[in-house]
Amino acid sequence: MKSSRMEAFSDGVIAIIITIMVLEMKVPHGDDLQALSTVLPVFISYILSFLYLGIYWNNHHHLLHTVSIVRGPILWANLHLLFWLSLIPFVTGWMGENHFARTPVTLYGINLFMAGTAYIILQKQILKFHGMESSLAQAIGNDLKGKISPILYLIAIALSQFMPIVAGLIYLLVAILWIIPDRRIEKLYQE
Amino acid sequence: MKSSRMEAFSDGVIAIIITIMVLEMKVPHGDDLQALSTVLPVFISYILSFLYLGIYWNNHHHLLHTVSIVRGPILWANLHLLFWLSLIPFVTGWMGENHFARTPVTLYGINLFMAGTAYIILQKQILKFHGMESSLAQAIGNDLKGKISPILYLIAIALSQFMPIVAGLIYLLVAILWIIPDRRIEKLYQE
Amino acid sequence: MKSSRMEAFSDGVIAIIITIMVLEMKVPHGDDLQALSTVLPVFISYILSFLYLGIYWNNHHHLLHTVSIVRGPILWANLHLLFWLSLIPFVTGWMGENHFARTPVTLYGINLFMAGTAYIILQKQILKFHGMESSLAQAIGNDLKGKISPILYLIAIALSQFMPIVAGLIYLLVAILWIIPDRRIEKLYQE
Amino acid sequence: MKSSRMEAFSDGVIAIIITIMVLEMKVPHGDDLQALSTVLPVFISYILSFLYLGIYWNNHHHLLHTVSIVRGPILWANLHLLFWLSLIPFVTGWMGENHFARTPVTLYGINLFMAGTAYIILQKQILKFHGMESSLAQAIGNDLKGKISPILYLIAIALSQFMPIVAGLIYLLVAILWIIPDRRIEKLYQE
Repeated sequence: MKSSRMEAFSDGVIAIIITIMVLEMKVPHGDDLQALSTVLPVFISYILSFLYLGIYWNNHHHLLHTVSIVRGPILWANLHLLFWLSLIPFVTGWMGENHFARTPVTLYGINLFMAGTAYIILQKQILKFHGMESSLAQAIGNDLKGKISPILYLIAIALSQFMPIVAGLIYLLVAILWIIPDRRIEKLYQE
Repeated sequence: MKSSRMEAFSDGVIAIIITIMVLEMKVPHGDDLQALSTVLPVFISYILSFLYLGIYWNNHHHLLHTVSIVRGPILWANLHLLFWLSLIPFVTGWMGENHFARTPVTLYGINLFMAGTAYIILQKQILKFHGMESSLAQAIGNDLKGKISPILYLIAIALSQFMPIVAGLIYLLVAILWIIPDRRIEKLYQE
Repeated sequence: MKSSRMEAFSDGVIAIIITIMVLEMKVPHGDDLQALSTVLPVFISYILSFLYLGIYWNNHHHLLHTVSIVRGPILWANLHLLFWLSLIPFVTGWMGENHFARTPVTLYGINLFMAGTAYIILQKQILKFHGMESSLAQAIGNDLKGKISPILYLIAIALSQFMPIVAGLIYLLVAILWIIPDRRIEKLYQE
Repeated sequence: MKSSRMEAFSDGVIAIIITIMVLEMKVPHGDDLQALSTVLPVFISYILSFLYLGIYWNNHHHLLHTVSIVRGPILWANLHLLFWLSLIPFVTGWMGENHFARTPVTLYGINLFMAGTAYIILQKQILKFHGMESSLAQAIGNDLKGKISPILYLIAIALSQFMPIVAGLIYLLVAILWIIPDRRIEKLYQE
């Protein structure tokens, strides 16, 4: 299968996830600011998830850009990643509607951790197929951000049962870390 | 009509089906593990349906890859397949919300059986148009998996009224059979 | 704007409409056949709308295939068509949930009539831009089906307040008429 | 990243937003005209939002058509625009369900203002990257419509707490202003 088709499919799925997530923000029944304020926690979790999906869309593209053909294991590693991303609207809604309560914040972190792990598995599958000497392998290098993120997720998950707000801030911190695109891959493209 | 456009449309529909299915997993009202556990059956049926849609997306691509032009009957055979796939979120939700009760499990099986049949009809239409000597005809060969699946679906449907869990496990078994992509078609591509 | 992009956008919108329509089929609360039977009217209206959207997708492609560049008026005529198509999930749900009651059947017919009219306007805009001597103009010819359909819709709308089922059957009849793709345009392509 | 991919992603998101918005038009429970009339305000707000999303889709294309490569800041400016557009189904539903009450009309205007601002930021980012002497810079010229729109939005927002209907009409007026595509950019393309 050509990687362009897997990319188009993944793009489609991410575009749909990012958009249907807004359906979790139920229109409030009143017409004043007080009614609107009930939606605020869901709105905040929506912003966080929007950032994450934007980051995954961006990085996913950078990752696939280096390959042209994909085979079974890569394809299923990709569907595995999309599976965890597809759950984000659910955990976003649950976390927001319960005002960042402990268990929903834990679940949100687990989802981020699983999606991050799925991304690393996909990356490994692609590297395995293309060899460690490939331009992608060089570009990823020691992959500092990729190694720090799961650790931060685990810390946040551990904290979420005691200080859910701190856990939420750690999720935001990881997102901000990633918003700066991976310069190493970009640099390599330029050469 | 060029097959690329029918493929893009089918990809779009499958991407949307796979993603809106998560909307059947309603956000629970409580904020603890007990509230979350009420979603578990829907989550399990979601995983099963996600696998099936991933398989259809993958196989559909392999099938269309061998043709370049499509005509009326192929186009309607394809829409017929998409019709049965589009019902999957509904039967998934019904099966999950009723904790794999008998009738929902039967209906889920009927839907899989109809989608499988629609796929075989599409395959036949494409073969008819391209001749039995085409590379696709050779690649499909005796199509063991394609012949076993409907039989397994029928067995599961028959069992579903007595042992719905066994029927569910048969659906999972068929999915696992198909996750291994059709090597025969892949081999032919390589030559 | 290149017509390919307008086509891709229209394809996307039609793919989404056809798929989210299934969300109008609410998962019933019971787990037996009786509970399922409550969904039957919505299911029947879903089949009808699925046919219509399949037809529009198919014909829309044939229509745009003859043009390569689109300008403002064509673009807005196309969005106008998509607007009426986007309302189909709503009228489908209303008609189904009310078991083909009079007013919902009337509204469904009005929606079909408006979509049909929007299609004719789009066709006229394209012809205006491309000249009556273009291959499209020849292919459309006297456009028998295009002239009969609005008349049949109007008859069905008039009947819907007295015999809603007959009106529903006329909608089905028009759909069947259109499922046979426009051979005239196809023939011209072959030459 | 190639601009074509960012464009395809943006097109997908806008196509999904425009289509799922119809889900905010809940199917009414009765089967007569009176039941249908309860949906009328949501329908009117749906038309308005449909126009706006059509305009953004159209202008967005014109804007991106002039660039071929996009970098980090442009990409995030684009996601920022999509973020505000993704909120339109929510504010549309809230405004419609509350019959154009004051606060929902204010919020709708704020959303339009933020989306308009996000569009201007995106435009500036693209100009910064391509230089003020580029064909895009010339095409945009003094950008009268782009300067008037935010002022009209602010006037409408200010009025919305006293005369929400007038505010709504101003939103409609801005939409009509934009439906006439930007001839300046189109002209430049022709040369």
